[in-house]
Amino acid sequence: MIKAQTLKGFRDFLPREARRRQYVISQLKSVFESFGFEPLETPTLEYEEILTGKYGEEGDKLMYRFEDNGKRRVAMRYDQTVPLSRVVAQYQNELATPFKRYQIQPVWRAENTQKGRYREFLQCDGDIVGSSSPLADAEIIATAGRCIQELGFKDFKILINDRENLKFANDVEGLSEKENLMIIRAVDKLKKIGKTGVLNELIKDGFSKEVAEKIMLEVEHRQPTLYLSQIFTSLEKLGINKNITEFSPTLARGLDYYTGLIFEIEIESYDVGSVCGGGRYDNLIGIFAGRQIPAVGFALGFDRILEAMEALKLFPDEVTDSSTTILVTIFSEELKQKSIDVAAKLRAQNINTEIYLGEVKEKNPLEKQLKYADQKQISYVVIIGQEESEKNIVTIKNMKTREQKQLTIQELVSGLNKKELSV
Amino acid sequence: MIKAQTLKGFRDFLPREARRRQYVISQLKSVFESFGFEPLETPTLEYEEILTGKYGEEGDKLMYRFEDNGKRRVAMRYDQTVPLSRVVAQYQNELATPFKRYQIQPVWRAENTQKGRYREFLQCDGDIVGSSSPLADAEIIATAGRCIQELGFKDFKILINDRENLKFANDVEGLSEKENLMIIRAVDKLKKIGKTGVLNELIKDGFSKEVAEKIMLEVEHRQPTLYLSQIFTSLEKLGINKNITEFSPTLARGLDYYTGLIFEIEIESYDVGSVCGGGRYDNLIGIFAGRQIPAVGFALGFDRILEAMEALKLFPDEVTDSSTTILVTIFSEELKQKSIDVAAKLRAQNINTEIYLGEVKEKNPLEKQLKYADQKQISYVVIIGQEESEKNIVTIKNMKTREQKQLTIQELVSGLNKKELSV
Repeated sequence: MIKAQTLKGFRDFLPREARRRQYVISQLKSVFESFGFEPLETPTLEYEEILTGKYGEEGDKLMYRFEDNGKRRVAMRYDQTVPLSRVVAQYQNELATPFKRYQIQPVWRAENTQKGRYREFLQCDGDIVGSSSPLADAEIIATAGRCIQELGFKDFKILINDRENLKFANDVEGLSEKENLMIIRAVDKLKKIGKTGVLNELIKDGFSKEVAEKIMLEVEHRQPTLYLSQIFTSLEKLGINKNITEFSPTLARGLDYYTGLIFEIEIESYDVGSVCGGGRYDNLIGIFAGRQIPAVGFALGFDRILEAMEALKLFPDEVTDSSTTILVTIFSEELKQKSIDVAAKLRAQNINTEIYLGEVKEKNPLEKQLKYADQKQISYVVIIGQEESEKNIVTIKNMKTREQKQLTIQELVSGLNKKELSV
Repeated sequence: MIKAQTLKGFRDFLPREARRRQYVISQLKSVFESFGFEPLETPTLEYEEILTGKYGEEGDKLMYRFEDNGKRRVAMRYDQTVPLSRVVAQYQNELATPFKRYQIQPVWRAENTQKGRYREFLQCDGDIVGSSSPLADAEIIATAGRCIQELGFKDFKILINDRENLKFANDVEGLSEKENLMIIRAVDKLKKIGKTGVLNELIKDGFSKEVAEKIMLEVEHRQPTLYLSQIFTSLEKLGINKNITEFSPTLARGLDYYTGLIFEIEIESYDVGSVCGGGRYDNLIGIFAGRQIPAVGFALGFDRILEAMEALKLFPDEVTDSSTTILVTIFSEELKQKSIDVAAKLRAQNINTEIYLGEVKEKNPLEKQLKYADQKQISYVVIIGQEESEKNIVTIKNMKTREQKQLTIQELVSGLNKKELSV
């Protein structure tokens, strides 16, 4: 027999987990829409040539790509930015500019799997395409901050810098762009490996000890650029509390393509690394359109966010519990129609209602049904036995307190609807 | 330059279309949950051996499959039933039984593309695993009917039959199971090719004219089985109007694996074929668990449903329009901060607000901004010019009526919140 198993790095999401994911997605969507972002979806498969060469050698290596039945070379979505670039070129006459879109879809990368790193994972991106206004940068930061806030995080910090602050051509004579990128990648590791670590990395990269030390001294003393000051002013006007933003001259972000603003969000009470990052990247979106198109955006780390929310207990009970409010049990074959009747009445009142569909044993008919409700974390159970049927009432059992009570159906419905069922 | 294009059979969903799809998904989810179904997600890629051999030769041919970087043979999700079978086997100790799950994810099939047929499309399934009770069959039909109703369809019909009615071993001497399946596949085409067409098909399949005619006569005169009668009784108890269900002895459904109930839903005012189909399939879910596990379920035809909803104008305005309620325009660089201020106040009142982020020209600053609002179908535009700024008011313009009016910000907020803005 074939073994029932999933591929390494790929996950099933059983109901409890799936509900949590859907909850986070729906919170994020509503924040995106409150800022005027609109949804975009792109296909899982693209022509290979659309994706290759855009993510460096490493990207091409980790990309899932193959030849399809029609002998076309195709590749699976690797991120959502390159498809966005394609969309911007392909529909340039249809899309309103600036184009503000959010996109929440899985991407695939054949990474080495390790804790918190998967081969199929959800990306959540928000981008503004076609605006070079610092107000767009501020809106992006505000949207990102609001996403984190709306999920229930209280103590988080938005670290902000300008890639301009990471240019060292004036400090190091004859510095090439490639060498500058090496510095950025080294500085990016500051949090992980400390100052000494970065210095060693720079020296390993071929810089002299003096130059390395000068770079570190310089970077730590950089000040907000004029462009950053404008962003900070707009952020305040947008109602973003000053206490949660911080100019961070050593924030580097590893990716090569940023051209201005860079930022990251960290949760202070749970050390999971950055849960959100983004910035301005004015030279990437235009690749298919053949002209420069400014853009600024951010990505949320969906799996990290879920991990932090779990640890900080930020999921509301109704998300963790079953979406079913009530299980109507079946006492016997004879009384079954009564139960169906009650379930139909509850549903007619928009109460999420399940009827027990498993086998009903003659001896101890409720035992398995109560166990089922517990397993699915259903809050209430309704019982209609001989007595209840004759009196035209129901017994309701609160599965958390294990208390139970007899009620008319009307009392049950109104109690559930007003959320003041006294059981 | 690389051409910006999508693969044949694959689609981008731009905001208007993406919003409509999200609307349908969210309606379906809430119906599923009202009946006690819980969400399940499975990976895009599975070990190839999990999927191959389950969908016949045709399925193996149309499946996207390839060798991954680790030399594993993998395949892309082809439907959601086989992954469900795997999940049921893999997590048998964790899942509550009966397991009621819904699953809304894309699947991939390298079909010949034609109108309404795509290579990547969304499947929406609801299934009850582990119950052989006819009440489960009734719940499945009721859930499916409620899905269609909740989307706004008024005139639809649920056609119901029992595969038992399509067994002809007692009518045709020495009929093999394979021959019986040939008959089912021929009868399944009745709507498309008519009675004569089916007769010809049967004759082409090798049946004599007499036998073919006998089969057709038999099938048309079959009556509801006892099992179907129980389902019809439960459906009535569940509050499903008798007028929308119909016993249809010639309903066959092409797939081989049904073992009892089969049903389809048709929209009467829009001929798009069946928008929903399902039935009982007791021999499929157990394939990985190695034992028989009864199951009953249905699938909605997502693309057909969207097509019918579009044709019948069932999308509410707020889904078709932008999710942005209001666009705050920027009159000039000097007055920009005022606009940001107003936007922040609107957002603080949970009003979906966008600030214009494009370039603001000195001459005719509003022209492009109003065009932007029109293009995104945003309902209202706020204007804050010199006069408004001095008087601490705003001008609000209704983009549908083109009327405008001056208001204080408080008046604006309360008018929008109460949905009684008199502009």
